[in-house]
Amino acid sequence: MTQADPRPITRALISVSDKTGLLPFAQALAGRGVEILSTGGTARMLSEAGLEVTEVSAHTGFPEMMAGRVKTLHPKIHGGILGRRGTDDAAMETHDIPPIDLVVVNLYPFQATVARPGCTLEEAIENIDIGGPAMVRAAAKNHAAVTVVVDPADYDRVLEGMQAGDGALEPALRFELAAKAFAHTARYDGAIANYLTARQGEEATAFPQTLSLQFDKALDLRYGENPHQQAAFYREARPAEAGVASARTIQGKALSFNNIADTDAALECVKQFVEPACVIVKHANPCGVAVAPDLASAYDKAFQTDPTSAFGGIIAFNRPLDGPTARAILARQFVEVIIAPRVEPEAARALAEKPNVRLLECGEWDGEAVPGWDYKRVNGGLLVQDRDLGRITEADLKCVTRRTPTPQEEADLLFAWRVAKFVKSNAIVYARGGQTIGVGAGQMSRVYSARIAGIKAADENLPVAGSVMASDAFFPFRDGIDAANDAGITAVIQPGGSMRDEEVIAAADEHDMAMVFTGMRHFRH
Amino acid sequence: MTQADPRPITRALISVSDKTGLLPFAQALAGRGVEILSTGGTARMLSEAGLEVTEVSAHTGFPEMMAGRVKTLHPKIHGGILGRRGTDDAAMETHDIPPIDLVVVNLYPFQATVARPGCTLEEAIENIDIGGPAMVRAAAKNHAAVTVVVDPADYDRVLEGMQAGDGALEPALRFELAAKAFAHTARYDGAIANYLTARQGEEATAFPQTLSLQFDKALDLRYGENPHQQAAFYREARPAEAGVASARTIQGKALSFNNIADTDAALECVKQFVEPACVIVKHANPCGVAVAPDLASAYDKAFQTDPTSAFGGIIAFNRPLDGPTARAILARQFVEVIIAPRVEPEAARALAEKPNVRLLECGEWDGEAVPGWDYKRVNGGLLVQDRDLGRITEADLKCVTRRTPTPQEEADLLFAWRVAKFVKSNAIVYARGGQTIGVGAGQMSRVYSARIAGIKAADENLPVAGSVMASDAFFPFRDGIDAANDAGITAVIQPGGSMRDEEVIAAADEHDMAMVFTGMRHFRH
Repeated sequence: MTQADPRPITRALISVSDKTGLLPFAQALAGRGVEILSTGGTARMLSEAGLEVTEVSAHTGFPEMMAGRVKTLHPKIHGGILGRRGTDDAAMETHDIPPIDLVVVNLYPFQATVARPGCTLEEAIENIDIGGPAMVRAAAKNHAAVTVVVDPADYDRVLEGMQAGDGALEPALRFELAAKAFAHTARYDGAIANYLTARQGEEATAFPQTLSLQFDKALDLRYGENPHQQAAFYREARPAEAGVASARTIQGKALSFNNIADTDAALECVKQFVEPACVIVKHANPCGVAVAPDLASAYDKAFQTDPTSAFGGIIAFNRPLDGPTARAILARQFVEVIIAPRVEPEAARALAEKPNVRLLECGEWDGEAVPGWDYKRVNGGLLVQDRDLGRITEADLKCVTRRTPTPQEEADLLFAWRVAKFVKSNAIVYARGGQTIGVGAGQMSRVYSARIAGIKAADENLPVAGSVMASDAFFPFRDGIDAANDAGITAVIQPGGSMRDEEVIAAADEHDMAMVFTGMRHFRH
Repeated sequence: MTQADPRPITRALISVSDKTGLLPFAQALAGRGVEILSTGGTARMLSEAGLEVTEVSAHTGFPEMMAGRVKTLHPKIHGGILGRRGTDDAAMETHDIPPIDLVVVNLYPFQATVARPGCTLEEAIENIDIGGPAMVRAAAKNHAAVTVVVDPADYDRVLEGMQAGDGALEPALRFELAAKAFAHTARYDGAIANYLTARQGEEATAFPQTLSLQFDKALDLRYGENPHQQAAFYREARPAEAGVASARTIQGKALSFNNIADTDAALECVKQFVEPACVIVKHANPCGVAVAPDLASAYDKAFQTDPTSAFGGIIAFNRPLDGPTARAILARQFVEVIIAPRVEPEAARALAEKPNVRLLECGEWDGEAVPGWDYKRVNGGLLVQDRDLGRITEADLKCVTRRTPTPQEEADLLFAWRVAKFVKSNAIVYARGGQTIGVGAGQMSRVYSARIAGIKAADENLPVAGSVMASDAFFPFRDGIDAANDAGITAVIQPGGSMRDEEVIAAADEHDMAMVFTGMRHFRH
């Protein structure tokens, strides 16, 4: 920087929406002899606490007008922030522009404004801050001389820095805070643009004309899907739901790109179940899923589906991980990641003996998934869609065959359907007694997915007889049903909706199979 | 809005970085009697063209100082923009603040600043505009009375609107321009935040601490991956490379979410080949790929791999689509999308007979893929990685067996490897004579992918004997090689790097197979 070394902070401008921790911070500043300029509610709060505060209008000599719309948009403020120390000192003196060395401003989150029930377009627009972002941006630009603070979490660092530097901060801290300030204004204007470009007057469309997204880095990763790709893991500012992004690492090696992706798949799948459940994922697909009265049994059944694939897999649970389950895993297989809402001390102790195993605790979820967007990258663009939150209950099932499912079949049909939603398309899942018997994933034609499910069941000596079958999309022809019958399948769950549904239903009736339609498809690619 | 109906535009503030179309626009404004305020280079350009221009410093009466840093940050400017017409008229008159009804400001793209060779951190920061965004934001907020223009492409609409409205614009247009203005400032600050939060002083990391992304909507889609999910397709502001995002639709039904995803997969795969090539994709996986001396033969060979899956598939070519190839497709199969760099008139005429077929022309590519980021969504977060641009040539292959591949085997190995990169993991590709013989995709263990490749080849009566095999990741055990030999595979390409490479190489030697290592993995999930 060409500017002179930073001088001690002598004058601060404070105007914040989030008043967390403000009072002690301002008191500490005042205690160091820092002059405080302020506006509106912030000024009132500080004055009432006994601090000496100069109103910005008194400082500029420009009267309050237009309901405060232009208060800080004044050369005496912006010159005080933007003036280059060393270069512009004479100009500042001539025009009576005292330097402002510290700008403490944060913006009321625009998302929160528009999320208020009944917020009109007019109210939303009235709430857009013009003066605040201008000061934040000016201070961030001139971070060579000025400190900008947009996050109450940084107050202590600023005070400590001032203490250590005789009232002046280190350049590295000023730079970091400036970068953070631009992220703050980018997020603010991104939220406004998302809101406004989704509207024509009071009408709102689902997807804005310009989509602005912002994420915070959680981890730099060793590499991406492959070692020649660099990668990082980002988090939403406030993840709405217990998930891999908000999980706490209890132990283990650093998470890899593929670990995180597979943990997400396993956890989101296991959330589908109410009973104690276990999902084992490998290469983005569930290779074993089961429900049981207790967690250890659920794991045992999930493992049986495909022990080969389970090796080096990711295991997710929907109940606190207990000691017996943790020990059963360690006794039997190599595991990359285990995730559960909570980890009991006994389980944590058992796993501590294998310190490389990544153990994550994600907290409880309440069963209600939070709507949000899913993204799929293509070259030069981004596909955006609602998360697939489609759920089916018994009441949604439409039996289309003469025979209705037995209670056990019905339970297995719903179980298999929940698994199929998380298997890459085309997906065919064979299940019996709350256990996957064969998983046919990721094939370009449905018939091969069915064949794979059968082959895998046979390879693991899991008899298909008496199992049910779930298909993520409709059967275009009767051949899929005929083949399932040959394998021993007695009941089928599928969306329905094929041009040849009649033929497919007739086939099921011929074989005395029960078949239910969900009316909902679950492609997942 | 509570403000009075907009009045005719009488005063404009113009200060632009992109001067495209500015002169005729300003001349037209002046011709309507609009007073023009301006600054710096813009003011000079307009004056030199003979327009009467008031410098902002003359308007505010505040002298130029600090190299122009605070010129427009003045109540006379911001009051003129933000004053509520009807409500603040008296205040504006008392304080001699004439209204500014039109703000024409655009910002030099920050990405372009920092992309300049040798741009230092200091130069980048010096280039950050403070006054411009403040005016854009103020005008956009007060769009009930003020028009803001950030894009020269909107000049004509503004002039037409003024013409139609006796100098005043329709509220809907002012609103739309205001929304666009916030997208402009969000993009600007997002780029600054990406740059600054990736740095500590002059050191830059690959991934910023806060990641700000922005995309422009290209299409609202009927639905997402499934009918119960809403969706839209977004594009980068300037796609760097010919791809699905920049392709032109020549004919056909509206593209669906799955169409776009699969077209991307097919096109990016076919770009890997130098010879005339065809890729057919179904459910995100190539189900047939071939190279040949001419396009029709390449299609014919690609189709043969898996005619069942090719039904309703997406077909991509790396040469202009010719008449014979188009007719061959129509004669043989139902196709959802065809994409090629260019479509010859004869092909377009042939396809016009099936107007539902989506026909896309994406333009030529130069063989060099442009680096960029790939995103994978997880609940509450985003995985970000470099695009997988890894490419292997003959020179990179390391033969690890006694027997080296024959020239034909070597060509087929490289062909199969390029296909395997686009097959979902675990991926096994059998190929011979520039044609896929069997594609084993998306399995949780490698051995099943190999079995599927073999089963599919057998089902289509494509003899495996004399074929080569590509594996996207290493073989952990020798069993994969033994099984491949049993199937008739004579040569293998794989990354290598297993703890048991020696055992795997010994197996290949036993069978007199040729095996090459690439040293590069291509997981794709």
